[in-house]
Amino acid sequence: MNCANRGGESPAPSSTAAAERLRALAADVVPGHSLPQGYYCDQAVFEADMSRVIGRKWLVAGHVDRIRNPGDYFLYEVGRESLIVVRSDASTVNAFFNVCRHRGSIVCTQAEGRAARFTCGYHAWSYGLDGALLAARQMPADFVRERHGLHRCHVRVFHGLIFVYLGTEEPPDFDATFGDLDPYLDFHGIAGARIAHRESYPTDANWKLVVENFLECYHCVPSHPEFCSMHPPEALVAFGAGPSSGPADAEDAYLPTLRAWEARAAALGRPIGTVDDGADTTHLRLLLQRTLRPGYESETQDGRPAAPLMGKRQAFDQGRMYLSFSPFTQLVADNDFAVLFVFTPRRVDYTDVDLYWLVDGRAGADQVDVARMIWGWDRTTRQDKTITENNQAGVRSQRYTPGPYSSQERRVVTFQEWYLKQLDQGAATVAAAGNTRTGS
Amino acid sequence: MNCANRGGESPAPSSTAAAERLRALAADVVPGHSLPQGYYCDQAVFEADMSRVIGRKWLVAGHVDRIRNPGDYFLYEVGRESLIVVRSDASTVNAFFNVCRHRGSIVCTQAEGRAARFTCGYHAWSYGLDGALLAARQMPADFVRERHGLHRCHVRVFHGLIFVYLGTEEPPDFDATFGDLDPYLDFHGIAGARIAHRESYPTDANWKLVVENFLECYHCVPSHPEFCSMHPPEALVAFGAGPSSGPADAEDAYLPTLRAWEARAAALGRPIGTVDDGADTTHLRLLLQRTLRPGYESETQDGRPAAPLMGKRQAFDQGRMYLSFSPFTQLVADNDFAVLFVFTPRRVDYTDVDLYWLVDGRAGADQVDVARMIWGWDRTTRQDKTITENNQAGVRSQRYTPGPYSSQERRVVTFQEWYLKQLDQGAATVAAAGNTRTGS
Amino acid sequence: MNCANRGGESPAPSSTAAAERLRALAADVVPGHSLPQGYYCDQAVFEADMSRVIGRKWLVAGHVDRIRNPGDYFLYEVGRESLIVVRSDASTVNAFFNVCRHRGSIVCTQAEGRAARFTCGYHAWSYGLDGALLAARQMPADFVRERHGLHRCHVRVFHGLIFVYLGTEEPPDFDATFGDLDPYLDFHGIAGARIAHRESYPTDANWKLVVENFLECYHCVPSHPEFCSMHPPEALVAFGAGPSSGPADAEDAYLPTLRAWEARAAALGRPIGTVDDGADTTHLRLLLQRTLRPGYESETQDGRPAAPLMGKRQAFDQGRMYLSFSPFTQLVADNDFAVLFVFTPRRVDYTDVDLYWLVDGRAGADQVDVARMIWGWDRTTRQDKTITENNQAGVRSQRYTPGPYSSQERRVVTFQEWYLKQLDQGAATVAAAGNTRTGS
Repeated sequence: MNCANRGGESPAPSSTAAAERLRALAADVVPGHSLPQGYYCDQAVFEADMSRVIGRKWLVAGHVDRIRNPGDYFLYEVGRESLIVVRSDASTVNAFFNVCRHRGSIVCTQAEGRAARFTCGYHAWSYGLDGALLAARQMPADFVRERHGLHRCHVRVFHGLIFVYLGTEEPPDFDATFGDLDPYLDFHGIAGARIAHRESYPTDANWKLVVENFLECYHCVPSHPEFCSMHPPEALVAFGAGPSSGPADAEDAYLPTLRAWEARAAALGRPIGTVDDGADTTHLRLLLQRTLRPGYESETQDGRPAAPLMGKRQAFDQGRMYLSFSPFTQLVADNDFAVLFVFTPRRVDYTDVDLYWLVDGRAGADQVDVARMIWGWDRTTRQDKTITENNQAGVRSQRYTPGPYSSQERRVVTFQEWYLKQLDQGAATVAAAGNTRTGS
Repeated sequence: MNCANRGGESPAPSSTAAAERLRALAADVVPGHSLPQGYYCDQAVFEADMSRVIGRKWLVAGHVDRIRNPGDYFLYEVGRESLIVVRSDASTVNAFFNVCRHRGSIVCTQAEGRAARFTCGYHAWSYGLDGALLAARQMPADFVRERHGLHRCHVRVFHGLIFVYLGTEEPPDFDATFGDLDPYLDFHGIAGARIAHRESYPTDANWKLVVENFLECYHCVPSHPEFCSMHPPEALVAFGAGPSSGPADAEDAYLPTLRAWEARAAALGRPIGTVDDGADTTHLRLLLQRTLRPGYESETQDGRPAAPLMGKRQAFDQGRMYLSFSPFTQLVADNDFAVLFVFTPRRVDYTDVDLYWLVDGRAGADQVDVARMIWGWDRTTRQDKTITENNQAGVRSQRYTPGPYSSQERRVVTFQEWYLKQLDQGAATVAAAGNTRTGS
Repeated sequence: MNCANRGGESPAPSSTAAAERLRALAADVVPGHSLPQGYYCDQAVFEADMSRVIGRKWLVAGHVDRIRNPGDYFLYEVGRESLIVVRSDASTVNAFFNVCRHRGSIVCTQAEGRAARFTCGYHAWSYGLDGALLAARQMPADFVRERHGLHRCHVRVFHGLIFVYLGTEEPPDFDATFGDLDPYLDFHGIAGARIAHRESYPTDANWKLVVENFLECYHCVPSHPEFCSMHPPEALVAFGAGPSSGPADAEDAYLPTLRAWEARAAALGRPIGTVDDGADTTHLRLLLQRTLRPGYESETQDGRPAAPLMGKRQAFDQGRMYLSFSPFTQLVADNDFAVLFVFTPRRVDYTDVDLYWLVDGRAGADQVDVARMIWGWDRTTRQDKTITENNQAGVRSQRYTPGPYSSQERRVVTFQEWYLKQLDQGAATVAAAGNTRTGS
């Protein structure tokens, strides 16, 4: 058994020059404006992003529905890394770096599959589903098999979502970070969901442009006719990209409508609440639930549902939830389906954008109208791909000058503050982790 | 409305290392020999070329015939920059950096078209044909719309040719630089010409190899049978690439023939004169008019014209003009058509080569035989593309050693002197401009 | 006449940073383990490999059967270099850098052919088959034609194999280095062989991964079913990749079988002997002759020969020779055909792998069953391409940690010692050569 190839250039050595470059860039940041060019274009920044930010966050690699049975696995690729995410047994999901401990070959070359063990196609070093080295022929007497298991990646399954953490040091406490989201995910039935559709939108742009695009709805009216058709215009301005994404006065104007809906939704059992993490938090989470366009029960072209009710719901309540676990992972949940957005940085100017459409685990194939279900977000994400790639193309100009944000892009400002903090703090973490970084 | 995508890698930061590299390369130059490898292959040199040389010259972006009506525009791409060249009104052509002042997206994604305004496809910031920001929703109270127009590029229309200057500082005085070319362009009717054909010959070579190829006719006999068939052999040796391009003795030998033709041509109204700028000038211009092969009235396969007489001519005079505005822009004018050559550096090893065939503006489509008109220069330029690309392939060798020039390549020697001076002087200009480089 | 295009990026300037990078990498080497990531992935290492190791070895560019007649030539491309390998006359083979001494164009653009002279397609500088400049028009009076011949590459034909040496300094004495291989090559008839088949297996991996793959047979059982089917399993373990490639105890166990076969083979005229160069030698040669699978007369699917006996043989002896001239060139000779393996580094992550199947020069086309002859090594080399590319993909991970070698990979350990020594010693050679590096 084995799994998928990776292209890719050589790693750039971190250096004094890179550190100086980062300091110079930081000095050019103008608060309330888009970031200086280097943050979107420089290889040195991307290397720092990988080691200090991306490698220090809990990232969602996928949903357990991809690996229901022991031995089921899929590859998750981030930066230059390939991870094998595998169900080791009924109750355990593991993630391993897809690198043989012998001479470094990728062990698994297929993107997904089912395996009894992982045998490297080169010299047949063989690893169990728990990553332990099972067999290695002809090794010297002092070879300690136990020290040559696959390098583990921190992993945590939370409501069916598989979180991984790339760093070698102890990650931020998971429950302290995400535990309060429990009732929402529970009500929406995310753990028991099944994947009804999956689609990739590879985007030729830096990951921060992908994230910044998702964290504001200022572009919704010009760019997303389908998306706008499903939402009350005033809600899009006020909360288009979650709490604190829109102008304060628009929020105030929409609040009475929101509160009235919250009361109705709560009466139907929906847990009500908001999360609006600030720039000082580790994961910059967001949670907001709000109304769909009047008359709409789901984000479909005609507003009619495309699947049965999800989770613990008893009735349609005409609302939707937007939950951001971090800038890298978003969940948008209607009553009948949810869309998981996974943004994965790969190279300085390339980001994987993968969407999972989730439906209730009990919903049969004949109960789900996939075409109607994906109509809105498939089109919207294709549009986002185009505008984000045009953004990247433009910031390459020597005459790009960071511009001021509108009041509808408040969340992007917060994201940038958060990002710059992570970059600073990450430097210290990397330095500390460096001391303990010598194999498993 | 919107316009065309650009590929491209991240900009390399200018650095002390780059400056040292340039100094070391300069020390390796051997006068009278081709340049050391680094000038054709190093990214650091290309960055310096962009900021010190290419960005400090009046470049021809095209001919006004592409934009006859208000709102007509086309994109001109140079290095990593994209310019929107637009007819703002009947009497005004503007050029803007194609970068939104909000978050840096390219504003225009189509290569050419007609627009009432330029609306960024991302957040709908909308710019007038004069570059002014017309609309930007939801901006904070202290936002000054007048300060967020598209960045302007210096532009000047001269006899229908649209010149742009990328630098932010005041460019060299246009009239002092090009004014003396007035009578020639006037006689040839370049201002009123129309584009009968346009063709691109993207060339995988450094721009200096493209220019050096054009500035000598030493390669004409081995490489260009069609071209040679249309010219007197002795003229090609003497003046194949303009004044001072051939051996002094060959010039002397051809001079009586040339003088006799000049007298006849002058009698038919043609202004006679020569421009032969030296290495100390800003644009290294060239102008020479000379005879075609005996019996030829135009550069066509059989020597017969392919279009009606251009400009102020009353009769065919069996001559042609070669006019170089700068190493980046050449104009070859026969009696019936003219060819504009635009060489645009894009990457260290890639250059756009675009040819415009111009005919008299009053010539109807049925009066122009496009196939016969392009026969010579289309084939010749395809040949030049091949030999220039082979040149680039060879100079990559570690064993490439700059070789000596022949007496028929005198103009290339002058070009190199000029180029090296520009590189030196440009360093000072860039440093000075740096102080004033903070947006419009 | 002319010959083949090369792609390729700009050369990276050697620098203090590169030297520091190499020192830091050397400090990370753990003996008995695979090399640190940088050796397989860094551009700076590849540049050093080219100038210090690859450029300082006798490399096999091909077999004289490709150029039987005066004027026959082929291009051999290594790193960024292109060499013209040409039969100048009946008794002379030359190799020239494919770079015009005028302005550096590649002279020859076709991969192989026959020429009376080499005329550069740019300005028609014309070179004789001995590299001398024959014609260059319009050159100044002080131009010395004799100083502008094509740059020569050291060349030596040895038993039909064309060895080249890229460096400008005096290469290691050829006869002192390879002379003792004379009787083996003579017996096998390599000089008089003809090429029955040629195939390329371009491999997206660093050249050291290609070499390491070939220098061990630890991967044979998992990866090469066809290969294993033709060999006694105990021989593969003991000597799968030549002397000192397998575990010492396996060698002892197989030795009696080997000695008995050697006696029989010697009686049939085969010269017997072993070469097992250590890490201190210039070329790290290997020579071992051993048995095929019982009943097999050749490395074919059914063990029956695919061609007539080669060289001075009178009868099949059921043995085969493995001869490594250097890590870059291998020769595997059965009784009826031989396979020449040429590994040529091109870029840090790309290596040309070219195989030549040689048969006796007297064997007619109807006496050679090409399909049966190539069955084993064609499949095996395709497999090697895949596993080597997977190896490269894996070592790009930040979590790649050099792993320990098995007892069946002893020769890889020796190779690495040798390589690291060459890298160190090459630095001195390059520095010394630098003083004399000014033209031909």
